[in-house]
Amino acid sequence: MSQDRITAVYLVETPKSLEQAAAVIVGEQSTGTFTAVPGETDALKEKHGARVERIQPLEETDRPSLPGARIPAGHDGKYRRGLVTVSFPLHNFGPSIPNLMSAVAGNVYELQELSGLRLMDLDLPDAFAVKYAGPKFGIAGTRRLAAVEGRPLLGTIVKPSVGLTPEELSALVGRLALAGLDFIKDDELNADPPYAPFERKVKTVMDAVHRTADKTGRKLMYAFNITGDYEEMQRRHELVVKAGGTCVMVSILSVGLTGLAALNRYSEVPIHGHRNQWGMLTRCPQLGIEFTAFQKLCRLAGADHLHVNGLNSKFYESNESVTRSIRACLTPMYGGYLTMPVVSSAQWAGTAPATYEATRTVDVMHLAGGGILAHPDGPAAGFESMKLGWQAAVQGIPLAEYASQNPALLRAIDKFGGR
Amino acid sequence: MSQDRITAVYLVETPKSLEQAAAVIVGEQSTGTFTAVPGETDALKEKHGARVERIQPLEETDRPSLPGARIPAGHDGKYRRGLVTVSFPLHNFGPSIPNLMSAVAGNVYELQELSGLRLMDLDLPDAFAVKYAGPKFGIAGTRRLAAVEGRPLLGTIVKPSVGLTPEELSALVGRLALAGLDFIKDDELNADPPYAPFERKVKTVMDAVHRTADKTGRKLMYAFNITGDYEEMQRRHELVVKAGGTCVMVSILSVGLTGLAALNRYSEVPIHGHRNQWGMLTRCPQLGIEFTAFQKLCRLAGADHLHVNGLNSKFYESNESVTRSIRACLTPMYGGYLTMPVVSSAQWAGTAPATYEATRTVDVMHLAGGGILAHPDGPAAGFESMKLGWQAAVQGIPLAEYASQNPALLRAIDKFGGR
Repeated sequence: MSQDRITAVYLVETPKSLEQAAAVIVGEQSTGTFTAVPGETDALKEKHGARVERIQPLEETDRPSLPGARIPAGHDGKYRRGLVTVSFPLHNFGPSIPNLMSAVAGNVYELQELSGLRLMDLDLPDAFAVKYAGPKFGIAGTRRLAAVEGRPLLGTIVKPSVGLTPEELSALVGRLALAGLDFIKDDELNADPPYAPFERKVKTVMDAVHRTADKTGRKLMYAFNITGDYEEMQRRHELVVKAGGTCVMVSILSVGLTGLAALNRYSEVPIHGHRNQWGMLTRCPQLGIEFTAFQKLCRLAGADHLHVNGLNSKFYESNESVTRSIRACLTPMYGGYLTMPVVSSAQWAGTAPATYEATRTVDVMHLAGGGILAHPDGPAAGFESMKLGWQAAVQGIPLAEYASQNPALLRAIDKFGGR
Repeated sequence: MSQDRITAVYLVETPKSLEQAAAVIVGEQSTGTFTAVPGETDALKEKHGARVERIQPLEETDRPSLPGARIPAGHDGKYRRGLVTVSFPLHNFGPSIPNLMSAVAGNVYELQELSGLRLMDLDLPDAFAVKYAGPKFGIAGTRRLAAVEGRPLLGTIVKPSVGLTPEELSALVGRLALAGLDFIKDDELNADPPYAPFERKVKTVMDAVHRTADKTGRKLMYAFNITGDYEEMQRRHELVVKAGGTCVMVSILSVGLTGLAALNRYSEVPIHGHRNQWGMLTRCPQLGIEFTAFQKLCRLAGADHLHVNGLNSKFYESNESVTRSIRACLTPMYGGYLTMPVVSSAQWAGTAPATYEATRTVDVMHLAGGGILAHPDGPAAGFESMKLGWQAAVQGIPLAEYASQNPALLRAIDKFGGR
């Protein structure tokens, strides 16, 4: 990989030729404007111009994916698609995530020469790893803190997501900690609401966590949602650490990649990265960003855990896409920077086999909201059913067969299997 | 307007009925999950549930705009569209922009009950105005600092956008300041690159600005792009202020709305808000956010100026959409919070009449890159042509007629009029 250029791969759709579209992209995102200007010399273009490295044609289509493309004279009615690889000189902006974004994902999405543009992947030179330390805990550090080896971290999301008082929440956390859960997270809808102020929430929840740990010897990891304005995030992180908490959560797209990077400079516990709002950036297949590219930025900026949806979830995303996302998080960058993928959304014991079969890893965090909390025999049985689901998966035993010996799993199948 | 609820208007597309889709949205974004859980009582739902306020059906369509919608049994092949107004209790998250975003624009974009979702507008109670002070300078403060009344602020973007050394940039700024320009901004591609370190850039540029001001009595406003990681942004702002600069620029989507709000808490000069990357959030008509909603958040967070593209630009956006954006920025919120719309992209004297005709305002910043810098008689004539374009526009005189008495305008028409 080049150490002095950034490489970006785009899925391009255009009413022009792919070559013409690629030329407009590199001009707009480096030295050009709509008309020649004094000072745009050949030497300057040579030193600072972005460069088309490769064009790989894909299928054509009869209608534009996005509105507003200008149709060239003599257009044949076809819109060409292709993968276009572009490289940018690192010295144009330096190893800065926010300024990288303006270059690789800036005004270019609005060009009328394009009827589709999606950033598929990024390759970033080592200079970025010098600037951004990445996950401080990652998979190994999280396993150490949660004392879980050899299987996924299993946990839940507080439900109802909205409305519990700090005292009600504390009671719920106490019950779930006693039930043996490894991990609980706040819902992304719940950070510091007036009816459950953050400071009070941290105190009551950590009281329950510590009380149970004294009994069981195991300290549950609770991810407190510290999403907020800059100073609030900092203050909330401090409250969590002072109270003996072992994880903070942020909505990455609410605080921005710069907010995440700022948090990572002072954080003392793993950062649980939630990707709500991500659908806006990715659900239109010919627009936005592919998770492969986005997760690299999140890992650079310091996400120890990163949400990837789940297989057979309540969301639109295909299982293939979720599988790609899990694999992406587990592919080392700069020889490290490993982030634990967080599998969630309509999960239960029965989604474990599909997840394992597709990914062949237990290095995930598997979260079930209803799938644990609404188990007919209560959350301890819900948690047990999740462990059993993974045991069956890893041993390659069909779920129904494994369930015949294990009532917690059987009851989970009865309740959730028909969905 | 309700003072204890937030109102969000969505453009929804769904294979189900609009009523069913709306019910899923309010469940997902407040108290619900995929299965009933203990604790989700009627009282809790009543106090914390989001509420469907209004459903306004629009047209139907035969194919889904977005992939991954689950087709219900017995589907008639139609996808219903409509405007759905939802209200959220303020006490679910309090007056917090980052947590508001997780509620009104979070996981909801990924629901498989929807084949399209776009956040069209937001109404936010006064509590947000108590928390977020909004633009400190706005239109009046910017005019005062730039000493421009009665016409738009006219200026340019540094071109070539990438590659000038601090000394070359300083020489260019000196020439443009002497030519009379009101305003110059860094390109969004250019903040603190290794070949032109920020500190040196501020020094050389402000030397040129001050030197010219000593001669002419007018101090050009230069928007230094301070986009960067959190501490960098703060340090760069300080360098600008210390050097006597009068404006800082940030790429809002690079630093996030929380980054903008953080800057606004310590900033001492107007904040020029650049919206590069915005295309990702808005170009697919059935996904993302409409500018009407987004600009309110940017104004709350403190943008004194806000980019809106330009009429007849090099971008995909229609003139109607640009016009709506300009009007939106000029519509008071909380009785104020006015942001100066920044009209740019392939602009020149000839785009002034269309802009004025559509908006009937001179409270804009009108930026021409090539349209000033590449004027055949140089930038002073380019600037003069822009002023003349606006004079013709405001007086309702056809451009060609006005040009017959004004050579700078005539030459601009000759060069740029044929595009």
